[in-house]
Order: sequence, then C-alpha cells, then structure tokens
Amino acid sequence: MAEYDPDNIFAKILRGEIPSTKVYEDDDTLVFMDIMPRADGHCLVIPKTPCRNLLDASTEQLASVIAVTQKVARAVKEAFDAGGVTIQQFNEAVGGQEVFHLHFHILPRHSGVALRAPGQMGDMDAIAGHAEKIRAALKAA
Amino acid sequence: MAEYDPDNIFAKILRGEIPSTKVYEDDDTLVFMDIMPRADGHCLVIPKTPCRNLLDASTEQLASVIAVTQKVARAVKEAFDAGGVTIQQFNEAVGGQEVFHLHFHILPRHSGVALRAPGQMGDMDAIAGHAEKIRAALKAA
Repeated sequence: MAEYDPDNIFAKILRGEIPSTKVYEDDDTLVFMDIMPRADGHCLVIPKTPCRNLLDASTEQLASVIAVTQKVARAVKEAFDAGGVTIQQFNEAVGGQEVFHLHFHILPRHSGVALRAPGQMGDMDAIAGHAEKIRAALKAA
Repeated sequence: MAEYDPDNIFAKILRGEIPSTKVYEDDDTLVFMDIMPRADGHCLVIPKTPCRNLLDASTEQLASVIAVTQKVARAVKEAFDAGGVTIQQFNEAVGGQEVFHLHFHILPRHSGVALRAPGQMGDMDAIAGHAEKIRAALKAA
C-alpha cells in the first residue's frame, strides 16, 4: 500500500489550509459535508490523525470513527426525516477511494430517491443549510 | 425504529439453524460468505449479539465488528490479489438493508470489474472455494 500523503485535501482541511463545512468535531474526529453530495445531508467522518484508509488504520482510529459515524447517522436520520442511512467506505482507487485519508460516507436515504451520480459539485448554500440541520439534530440528541 | 426480529436469517445462522459458509469467528463476531456475492470473496461481518443495524448497536458491538472488518478486508485483499476493497453498511430497507441484523459488507475490487447486480444467487462451490482462500490468508497473516 502507498504511503500516507500529507498533502491530501482532508489533511489540508484538518490543518485549516482549505475550508470545509463542519458538522461535528471532537478530540479524535472531524465530520464535514461532502461537496459532491450524492444525497442531501451527505457528510464524511474522518480521524484527525493520519491514516490512508481502513487497511492501515489503528484500532483507536477505527473505534472513534465508527462511534462518531453512528452518532451522526442517527442525527442525519432525524434531521432529514430519512427512512434509512447508507454507509460507504472505500479503500484504494480501485475500491472507490478518491481522497487518501480514511473516511466514512454517511448518506441519508428516502424512499424512491436514488443516490445522485458521483462527482457532481453541490450548491454550497444548500450544503450549508443541510449542515445546520445536522448540527441542530446533534444538539437536540 | 422497529424492534430486533430474532427470526432474521443471520440470527438463525448464529443459532446454527441454517447453514453458512464461515470464514472467521471469535467471541464477539462471525464472518461468513454472502450467498448473493456482488464480487468474488464478498463476505459479511456480524456481531454475535442482537442489534438491528448501526443505529441501535452498542459501542462494544461496533468496535468489535469494525476491527474484524479491517482484519478480513486485509485478508480478502491478499487472498484475491485485489487492488482495493469496498465496505458497505446499510440501515433500514430504504437505506439498502435486507437482513435486519447489523452487518458490514466486504467487497474485494479489481480494476475494470464492476460490482455484480444485487440479488443474484452465487455458485455455492465457487463460494466455498473463495471462503477457503480467505481463511488461508487469515491464517498466513
């Protein structure tokens, strides 16, 4: 497996070098909105410490990231009155990974609504509104 | 959210009431082959104790299941000389869930090979062979 690249865009987000729409943060994890949302409320959970993906993550990184994935999955379900939630986690380019810092996708789902095709930029005002709904649901939890 | 149904098929597999092609087992988790594999080596990680999905899982269930998902993801990558691994986890029917006992899908991926469509029964002899490859990779790890 390739080495961790400290110039990947999530590392830059963690260092504050590029902006992100944050949803949740604790000592170990950061949650922010996907800028190419495949569903309204699509957000990403990452560890604050470096690892490329699931394959090289530490036990501690995995435990904290999956616990926060659960917390935020519950919140998005509430925030968007979603009937379900889909979790995706991609490893290496062939496995679907595009940014090489471990991340879990959280996708609120609604009956009859397919995921949007990947790779389409979202509307940043809409994304900011979705983030606010998730933050409110987390606060109310 | 609906109650846990103790008659779901994974609960029956855990009680030994219906067969499965097992790959790995420890005190907390069981890993077995998906009988409708979307890729060769497609297997499932479940906790041995009841929970419906990610939304109602305990911290302990999540920690053990994600740790074993990592262990088996590494093994399938090795066993199938895969370029990557895709992890999927579905919550509620609208989220893609078909069996209502928490499970993580592990899908070995190869360049240029799309996932097969869901819902197609696999060849049981082929699946048994794939399971043996994963068990061998786990033993060699």
